[in-house]
Amino acid sequence: MSDLDGWRKRIDEIDKQLVKLLNERSQCALEIGQLKKAMKMAAWQPQREAEILRNVVKANEGPLDDAAIRHLFERIIDEARTLERHFMEGGSSFRKE
Amino acid sequence: MSDLDGWRKRIDEIDKQLVKLLNERSQCALEIGQLKKAMKMAAWQPQREAEILRNVVKANEGPLDDAAIRHLFERIIDEARTLERHFMEGGSSFRKE
Repeated sequence: MSDLDGWRKRIDEIDKQLVKLLNERSQCALEIGQLKKAMKMAAWQPQREAEILRNVVKANEGPLDDAAIRHLFERIIDEARTLERHFMEGGSSFRKE
Repeated sequence: MSDLDGWRKRIDEIDKQLVKLLNERSQCALEIGQLKKAMKMAAWQPQREAEILRNVVKANEGPLDDAAIRHLFERIIDEARTLERHFMEGGSSFRKE
């Protein structure tokens, strides 16, 4: 196996872990959505999003720069919000293509 | 601690792991970029990107749907490419805000 294949294999392993963590995170966001609904809290809390972005930038040690980390988490938060809205509107659960 | 705080704490923990894995993945992409440069290979290989997207969709068990996973990884790949370009052009290493 060439070095190139070795690094690609490592990326594939990391990607599997990322998929798992992204889904675990989304499940947490769904649980939070249900609690908020039960407590009649606003679904969308901008100060919590700001806190999340502060936390991930603080945890960042590179090589991705802080702007890249922020962009990625804005997208992650956005997908969680889309999923939450889908469930709140009574959408069916997980769709596999 | 309320249930809400508990779920948020879990999200904060997951986010730290995500930051770490995203950076580890980017480091692998940088290593691959250097190998490709040394071997005079094309930096950008669309069939490898297609393979990555197939792999992550295959690994996906929800609650995020396949389209969401694909969108997230398109962004992750894009940030890796930006970082690689930055290094190839002799940019300084990691910038902290």
